[in-house]
Amino acid sequence: MNRSERYRSLIEKLRKRKLRFVLAESCTGGLAAARITGIAGASEVFCGSMVTYRESVKTEWLGVSEDILSQHSSVSTEVTLAMVRAVLKATPEASLAAAITGHLGPDAPEELDGILFAAILCRESQALNSRSVPSPQPIQYRLQETGRAARQQEAADFLLNLIEESLD
Amino acid sequence: MNRSERYRSLIEKLRKRKLRFVLAESCTGGLAAARITGIAGASEVFCGSMVTYRESVKTEWLGVSEDILSQHSSVSTEVTLAMVRAVLKATPEASLAAAITGHLGPDAPEELDGILFAAILCRESQALNSRSVPSPQPIQYRLQETGRAARQQEAADFLLNLIEESLD
Repeated sequence: MNRSERYRSLIEKLRKRKLRFVLAESCTGGLAAARITGIAGASEVFCGSMVTYRESVKTEWLGVSEDILSQHSSVSTEVTLAMVRAVLKATPEASLAAAITGHLGPDAPEELDGILFAAILCRESQALNSRSVPSPQPIQYRLQETGRAARQQEAADFLLNLIEESLD
Repeated sequence: MNRSERYRSLIEKLRKRKLRFVLAESCTGGLAAARITGIAGASEVFCGSMVTYRESVKTEWLGVSEDILSQHSSVSTEVTLAMVRAVLKATPEASLAAAITGHLGPDAPEELDGILFAAILCRESQALNSRSVPSPQPIQYRLQETGRAARQQEAADFLLNLIEESLD
């Protein structure tokens, strides 16, 4: 399957199950949303994406606390988790949310260069406001590509694949 | 200049003038954001994008009133204007906002097939909460391309060019 066929298949699976999803994107910068919305019929299953590229926007749009951002890198399990919870909460129509942070380079801290964190959250499985409910564990992934544009595409594919896998 | 060079030039112009921008995208579905963030250094000038693909998300994230959405098409001057005002207000770091709505097809109402509305708003020139200040007039544009993916790209280019022109 080529990329468009995979995206079409994701849309079809969601449509059949009457599920809608929403994204919070940092490193992919809107590319995951753009790829999905390139397919006709996307609006049936795709609510939108908060492309929160700067830290201040993660705070203002998603309510990610300045404490979390200062205690952890903005590319981290903690921030990714805060993003996925916030975007699902902000989007009553969505039953599934995915969030991604990462460093595409150049000029990333060496230990984070090409590192992603991604998280998926389903409304049914989570009481979003309760701290007693276990949180989904964000997945860490090391990008294979080296150039920035290729990494952006790889990261978008990774996120959309993760959503598809969560449906199986 | 090819597309990447044009985007790089936009980032450089904004950087020199210490301006940051934010987007509210409907029909481009995140592609304008993705193109900008494909360029290294984008985070200096690009805050983020609210990709509000479904109507409910325009209301929940941007506060576009259900009245405006029911009285007008979601592809309209009025909705585009409400989006650009709301996203600038939601983003204190941004001094410039741009919003876009449109029908890329297929299955668009005939009179709106391939039609875009785009608006630019500068913080300095607008008292965001005052109705007495004249609103920016959204620009209507008819896409030249016919396929959905090509139209999405043309629309993203159109929006980013409009931002660049607003700086000249």
